[in-house]
Amino acid sequence: MTKVHNFSAGPAILPQSAIDASIEALQNFSGTNLSLLEVSHRSKEYEAVVAEAVQLVKDILNLSADYEVVFLQGGASLQFDMIPMNFLGSGQTAAYVNTGVWAGRAIKEAKMFGTVNVLASSEDKNFNYIPKDYTIPADAAYYHCTSNNTIYGTEMFEFPKSSVPMICDMSSDIFSRPFDASQFDMIYAGAQKNMGPAGTTLVIIKKSLLEKANEKVPTMLNYKIHIENGSMYNTPSVFAIFVCMHTLRWIKSIGLEAMEIRNKAKADLLYAEIDRNSLFVGTVVPEDRSRMNVNFVLKDKNLEADFLKFCESRNLSGLKGHRSVGGLRASLYNALELESVQALVNAMQDFEKVNA
Amino acid sequence: MTKVHNFSAGPAILPQSAIDASIEALQNFSGTNLSLLEVSHRSKEYEAVVAEAVQLVKDILNLSADYEVVFLQGGASLQFDMIPMNFLGSGQTAAYVNTGVWAGRAIKEAKMFGTVNVLASSEDKNFNYIPKDYTIPADAAYYHCTSNNTIYGTEMFEFPKSSVPMICDMSSDIFSRPFDASQFDMIYAGAQKNMGPAGTTLVIIKKSLLEKANEKVPTMLNYKIHIENGSMYNTPSVFAIFVCMHTLRWIKSIGLEAMEIRNKAKADLLYAEIDRNSLFVGTVVPEDRSRMNVNFVLKDKNLEADFLKFCESRNLSGLKGHRSVGGLRASLYNALELESVQALVNAMQDFEKVNA
Repeated sequence: MTKVHNFSAGPAILPQSAIDASIEALQNFSGTNLSLLEVSHRSKEYEAVVAEAVQLVKDILNLSADYEVVFLQGGASLQFDMIPMNFLGSGQTAAYVNTGVWAGRAIKEAKMFGTVNVLASSEDKNFNYIPKDYTIPADAAYYHCTSNNTIYGTEMFEFPKSSVPMICDMSSDIFSRPFDASQFDMIYAGAQKNMGPAGTTLVIIKKSLLEKANEKVPTMLNYKIHIENGSMYNTPSVFAIFVCMHTLRWIKSIGLEAMEIRNKAKADLLYAEIDRNSLFVGTVVPEDRSRMNVNFVLKDKNLEADFLKFCESRNLSGLKGHRSVGGLRASLYNALELESVQALVNAMQDFEKVNA
Repeated sequence: MTKVHNFSAGPAILPQSAIDASIEALQNFSGTNLSLLEVSHRSKEYEAVVAEAVQLVKDILNLSADYEVVFLQGGASLQFDMIPMNFLGSGQTAAYVNTGVWAGRAIKEAKMFGTVNVLASSEDKNFNYIPKDYTIPADAAYYHCTSNNTIYGTEMFEFPKSSVPMICDMSSDIFSRPFDASQFDMIYAGAQKNMGPAGTTLVIIKKSLLEKANEKVPTMLNYKIHIENGSMYNTPSVFAIFVCMHTLRWIKSIGLEAMEIRNKAKADLLYAEIDRNSLFVGTVVPEDRSRMNVNFVLKDKNLEADFLKFCESRNLSGLKGHRSVGGLRASLYNALELESVQALVNAMQDFEKVNA
């Protein structure tokens, strides 16, 4: 099989060990002589998978006993609704920062349930930076931010001090580096970047935030219900959680410190080439450049289609920018190897030789 | 690998062709040289999967152009919330029939959004029959029923006449027999019985019902949004839909008429043995016995654990009744072969010889 370098923004590259384990489980899951697709989610073999996935999240992020961990469905997008439904009380205001499409969608949904105070926005410069100069009001119900902006290629490397509960959408950079999880009251992430395939969403909530939750929330949108039932209020996304469990095993085996070194090396290599190469230019201010999603454009836009074709001929895949912004985007998630970035850098250099 | 006869109530047995196709796609999806777990849901290869799955549903059920088909997340349980959010208007009443746990949960959720008229219930006899003697009020916003009751083993083989939109939860018997889909305004089904693995939910809605939908519905809970975006408003449950597509191909290749003959033969064989065998007794009134989930008990409850152990020793799996009702339950979904039912019948006969 031809080796393809997968720069897809998500669903995205996963560790081979997780894919291999999935293939094995589709044939014979955990010695049951049944496919993983056919076993009850309440079998002891599968309950062990969910329990291990939850424990791995706690171990990797060093979560204290104050935190609950569940796997839900509906992607981060359903969290945009569930967060205000659960935590924006009547007459309260929620504080959001607008750093791109996904943050914007979170804001739009919260407005359906109550008052939203948009503390800062980088929309003025097409979201090419992270706003930092704002204060979180002490009377907000919560503060919400998006740590990495997949579409625009910006990333928050530091988080503000907050006296109110801090909620973060970490869909596209969770498990990519160490961070102090204890500063957050809620973290959520769609699985399909660094954690697994599409179809499940990780939600981490501090018990003290849960205690403040609204009472009248529809059952399937109520965090307490899902937590009380250990991600099994109804049938969970069985296969997706299984793949997450194996990806989390791989992440734990490397450790977040080593993962950050890997990810920084990949990003540094690519950004250095973007800055050196006469044909390309990065779109994000240097201090806020994401290590997960590297956005760049060709100075001569007419060369874009040619470059993408050139990449494809070298089995460099998934480099087209999001349809809403265009340009180029290389996603460098955990499982992508440095050699793939080197292959892209080589392609950029060879393309420069022909087109400069 | 030992052949296991899988009577699990869901997630449940799937056709081997769908499992084989999944294994292949985890290695190399549609010639991309990438695993299905790593490809963009917006790749042309994957968009073709969703389009084919939708078309197969339309073909198998003979749906007219009046119907929309989408694949969502959250299981049938999230539909219990989405239905009243979208279709129960202010001041309106929704009509429900209570035929068991899942119908009951649908009723409980609807009550959070408006007034519910429970037209009939079989709770008086522990849901061992389908109530038939009721009239659907002409002023109801909609009528909701559950065609097959997985936990209690009852099934609706006929549906009432309704002048209001008729909505049916067909999670556990869709695609098991031909039926006139045109009498329904909405049909929904969690995939993990006859259609695929856990992680996706089929929703079929008539355009005329959609036109009546409430305006202010949170985006991820709004049917119109998902339909306008062809199941891709956000990242769908990629793998689960892929498996559904292959299961639907298999269903279409057999056809619902032939599927009904298969399913009737399996159910008849097992019910005949339950009625003949001196040790066992069926729990459901004969005319409402489900062909999908066969509920029965041992007359001598003390033998139950022994019988389950006896079955396990013969690789008959998943026969324990739902934890809320106990007893025995054999689920005979589409992909289960007659030989598996014969193996169970043989076990019942051999158990009788020893214990009668």
